[in-house]
Amino acid sequence: MSRLDSFIRRMVAQRACLDAAARLIDDVPGAILELGLGNGRTYDHLRTLFPSREIFVFDRQIAAHPDCIPDDGHMFLGEVIDRLPDAAARLGKSVALVHSDIGSGRPETDAILFGRLVPLLGDLVCPGGLVLSDQALPADRWQPLPLPDGVAAERYFMYRVGG
Amino acid sequence: MSRLDSFIRRMVAQRACLDAAARLIDDVPGAILELGLGNGRTYDHLRTLFPSREIFVFDRQIAAHPDCIPDDGHMFLGEVIDRLPDAAARLGKSVALVHSDIGSGRPETDAILFGRLVPLLGDLVCPGGLVLSDQALPADRWQPLPLPDGVAAERYFMYRVGG
Repeated sequence: MSRLDSFIRRMVAQRACLDAAARLIDDVPGAILELGLGNGRTYDHLRTLFPSREIFVFDRQIAAHPDCIPDDGHMFLGEVIDRLPDAAARLGKSVALVHSDIGSGRPETDAILFGRLVPLLGDLVCPGGLVLSDQALPADRWQPLPLPDGVAAERYFMYRVGG
Repeated sequence: MSRLDSFIRRMVAQRACLDAAARLIDDVPGAILELGLGNGRTYDHLRTLFPSREIFVFDRQIAAHPDCIPDDGHMFLGEVIDRLPDAAARLGKSVALVHSDIGSGRPETDAILFGRLVPLLGDLVCPGGLVLSDQALPADRWQPLPLPDGVAAERYFMYRVGG
C-alpha cells in the first residue's frame, strides 16, 4: 500500500467518523472543538455537519485556506495544551464533540501530549459527549465506541465521555 | 459538499487515473515524470505502480517525507518550466507517462504556465505516451482519454500523445 493509498484511507475514515459522530450527538447539545485547524478542510466539514452549533478551533498558527478560518471569537491560537484551560474557563463543561488531529507522529512526544490532553478535555466535554482522534488516547475512563462500517480497527478512534 | 469531501474526491480520482494509466502504458516502454513532488505521496504511489521504471521528479524545493525523496540523479530542482528542457536534453523523447500537479490555482497564472508546459512535454513524451493532469491542459494535438469509472468529467484529465 502506497502513502497515497494510506492517506486516502485515513481521510475517508476521518470523514466517516465525523459523519457518525454527528448522528451520535444529535440529542447532545453543545459546542464543537477542532484541535488542529491545519488547512481547514476538516473545519469546513464540521461547519457543514453542524451549521447551528458553535465551533471553536485550536492551532499554533493560522495556515488554512482563507475561506476556512473562523472569526477571532472562535479561534484559540497557541499551543493547544496551553489554550484548553482558557477554553474551559470560558465554555465550562459544555462541549458535545472534540475532534483531535494534533499528533506529531513521534510516539514519545505524543505520549506526553496525549497524557496531558485527556484530563484537559475532561473539563470541557459534557456527559455523553464524544472525542474523536486520529490516534489512540490514554482515556481509561472513556468508553471506546465501535467505528463506522468500512473503517478498520485503530485507523481512527471514537470515545464517549461518561457522566 | 465540504472541502474535505472534494479533497477526498480529488485524491481518489488521482489514484484511479494513475492506476488506469499504468495499465494503458503497459506496452509503452519509458520513464515516468512527476511534476510537483509536494509531500511525496503521489511519487510513492508511482514507485508502487512502476517498480522497474525510472521516475524523475520536478519541484522547486524538497518538502516531502524523507522516505519519499528520489536520489539526486532523479530530481530536477527549480521551476518546472525551466528544468524540463534539461530533462529533454538528457532523456530525449523517451517518457511514457507524465503526471502534472503544478497548478497554482490562479487561472491567469496557470494559463501562461500550461501554455508553456505543453510544447515542453511534447519534446519528452514518446508516441503513445500519456499525460495526466489535475487541470485541463491546452493540448489540442493530444487525444483526451475517457476517465476511469467513478471519476466525474473534468475532475482529472488524461491525454494520449500522438505519434
